[in-house]
Amino acid sequence: MKLSNRIQNMQFSPIRKLAPYAAEAKKRGIHVYHLNIGQPDVLTPEQFFKAIANFKEDVLKYTESQGMDILQESFIEYYKKWKTQFTKDELFITNGGSEAIMLTFMAICDPGDEILAPEPFYTNYNGFAEVASAKMTPFLTKAEEGFHLPPKEEIIKKITNKTRAIMISNPGNPTGVVYTSEELRMLGDIVKEYDLYLIADEVYREFVYDGLQYTSALSMKDIADRVIVIDSISKRYSACGARIGLVASKNKDLMYNIMKLCQSRLCVPTVEQVGAAALKDTPDSYFAETRAEYQKRRDIMMEGLNKIPGVICQKPTGAFYIVTKLPVEDAEDFAKFLLTDFSHNGKTVMVAPAEGFYATPGLGKDEIRLSYCLNCESLKDAMDLIGMAVTKYKEIHK
Amino acid sequence: MKLSNRIQNMQFSPIRKLAPYAAEAKKRGIHVYHLNIGQPDVLTPEQFFKAIANFKEDVLKYTESQGMDILQESFIEYYKKWKTQFTKDELFITNGGSEAIMLTFMAICDPGDEILAPEPFYTNYNGFAEVASAKMTPFLTKAEEGFHLPPKEEIIKKITNKTRAIMISNPGNPTGVVYTSEELRMLGDIVKEYDLYLIADEVYREFVYDGLQYTSALSMKDIADRVIVIDSISKRYSACGARIGLVASKNKDLMYNIMKLCQSRLCVPTVEQVGAAALKDTPDSYFAETRAEYQKRRDIMMEGLNKIPGVICQKPTGAFYIVTKLPVEDAEDFAKFLLTDFSHNGKTVMVAPAEGFYATPGLGKDEIRLSYCLNCESLKDAMDLIGMAVTKYKEIHK
Ligand SMILES: Cc1ncc(COP(=O)(O)O)c(C=O)c1O
Ligand SMILES: Cc1ncc(COP(=O)(O)O)c(C=O)c1O
Repeated sequence: MKLSNRIQNMQFSPIRKLAPYAAEAKKRGIHVYHLNIGQPDVLTPEQFFKAIANFKEDVLKYTESQGMDILQESFIEYYKKWKTQFTKDELFITNGGSEAIMLTFMAICDPGDEILAPEPFYTNYNGFAEVASAKMTPFLTKAEEGFHLPPKEEIIKKITNKTRAIMISNPGNPTGVVYTSEELRMLGDIVKEYDLYLIADEVYREFVYDGLQYTSALSMKDIADRVIVIDSISKRYSACGARIGLVASKNKDLMYNIMKLCQSRLCVPTVEQVGAAALKDTPDSYFAETRAEYQKRRDIMMEGLNKIPGVICQKPTGAFYIVTKLPVEDAEDFAKFLLTDFSHNGKTVMVAPAEGFYATPGLGKDEIRLSYCLNCESLKDAMDLIGMAVTKYKEIHK
Repeated sequence: MKLSNRIQNMQFSPIRKLAPYAAEAKKRGIHVYHLNIGQPDVLTPEQFFKAIANFKEDVLKYTESQGMDILQESFIEYYKKWKTQFTKDELFITNGGSEAIMLTFMAICDPGDEILAPEPFYTNYNGFAEVASAKMTPFLTKAEEGFHLPPKEEIIKKITNKTRAIMISNPGNPTGVVYTSEELRMLGDIVKEYDLYLIADEVYREFVYDGLQYTSALSMKDIADRVIVIDSISKRYSACGARIGLVASKNKDLMYNIMKLCQSRLCVPTVEQVGAAALKDTPDSYFAETRAEYQKRRDIMMEGLNKIPGVICQKPTGAFYIVTKLPVEDAEDFAKFLLTDFSHNGKTVMVAPAEGFYATPGLGKDEIRLSYCLNCESLKDAMDLIGMAVTKYKEIHK
């Protein structure tokens, strides 16, 4: 019995690759700080739980394929803050941002088609492309440049007649980069010139620091029909387990077709939609506090990194990740070392080797991704541990 | 900007096609009995709501990609009733049976591959096949034969080197057929002989009438590694809105690969999983009562059909659907007539033209699918209305 090539080509999550070593470390009684995962630790707004505690229906029915009215409306309201007025046929509720990405790829890619994206990028983009029998085509961004975009020529060099879209995560996972309005404009010009879509994964939109002005792809009104927005409540409200996201576009023909995909999987879970709709009552202070907290953590992490000789890393301004070059040859081996051969006062750290976020083989070998979903005190401790581990690792491998 | 051929080839749900006419009828003040949709009206067990009313976490986290332990365990327990012992790497939780089907197609089909299925079949199979750039290949079953399987020769005639699996819905949507153990055995022999998978969509497994013995594909131990089971709580517990299903197989290599797909979409919603896990405490009487209720309704529907001259329909023994031939040439036109030109005492009926459930063009033109998700009294009334409407329609179209 055959398995599809598609599924055989798919990779397991590189973030979870080292999980068995972490489990063993824990068995040995070692405390492991998890800087490897993007699971926020900030409290989920209580509005969510209040809404579902009161939820009771005689029959738990299928809801509308595009999402429940109350939830579509609450997102439409939310987008007014971003100066965008969506209608209900331009914004569909999905099973997390994940499904929004998959539906988008399905809708615009036939087998063999390509999606252009700056690497390193969120690895699951690969999985969704594989599912659509399409391909992620990378163009390089560098730690030295804070992972900002290369000049236009570098990007258009990679466009072929198979290219259907440019895709960005802004703010970026894994890099934490926040693109400037000039960078957005450059992408806008390219998609216009080459007749492409711009897929803007903005699930970290609220996580922008240093008082920086965020530029959403939605702000470019001249390419409104080319922009497809991926969004999610997972990070915004620390509600990853709700699996509520959305796909939105001003391109009604595209959305009309995506509706077919929504109908075929019937609908998104009712209870989580009811909880998510109630999140519109989350006070603005929640975001301000969350942002302040994450910014503080980013600063602690940067401070820790700057103390390690040989580290190359520009301070990122968004999301809750940092990709840094380490003064080691094989960062995956170092990540493993942290779990198998290192501990200090009974503690160690789990980090994600960055190689898995690159599509080009061989890139990112000396880089790791750190996520700062951990309280300040633990974070300080974890950064000290990484510093000590680098010293020790270099002693062994010199 | 291109849209994929895949999505342009997809159809909108044929069941919802007539929805605008129904909406207009309602605007004119006409009561519409919905015999067109498979949304059960039986009460959802209160265990579900109790479990979620007590649900509260500080942070609503991602759960395991394969499903929460408590839910996997509750399904493993459930399957013991069906004499099958699953382990946690053989049974993954999905977003409804819908996602289970999609993951299965993705895992076994490359672009151009084929899935063989008896037609008429659940139309969304087409959508999922399209998504996987694969194709549903039908072999015919007939109203006159109660939609039971044709002889083996008829089936194997349709097998090509692109065929990856035979797929059945058992009990069947739209036909209500329940296959005999001999029919199952025949399929088992074919998949063995031709090295195929057998995808058994058993979401209506509990809905079997007349004291009939149900034969699950899981009972054929000699082809255990070829059987992929699609399951769901949607119909079993009247919990369609929970979107909880599963894909299960004793083929560990297949499941290992499906796990990659599960990981890429991260996980299934937490709250609904917690609710679904509590359903294991549903008393057996719930199923006995539900079954008795549906059987009574099926009998009422059959009685109504038998009163209409020219109807061809064998009494089905499962699910909650009947496909019947009507003495009209164009059943879709008749279905539209019901909504636009017919009413009696301010009431009419919405039915699903069966043509959309056939893959072969031209088939099923004189057939409709009726679903009996409606209380007995309304059902009687609705069947009388259909009888009157047929008479009136034939008067006009003779
Ligand atoms: C850049 C990016 N996009 C999309 C997602 C998908 O998130 P979800 O499916 O939980 O909405 C993630 C999750 O980590 C992400 O980092
Ligand atoms: C035969 C069959 N399979 C699968 C499904 C999918 O159901 P769900 O996704 O709600 O589990 C349905 C729903 O009507 C169905 O009729």
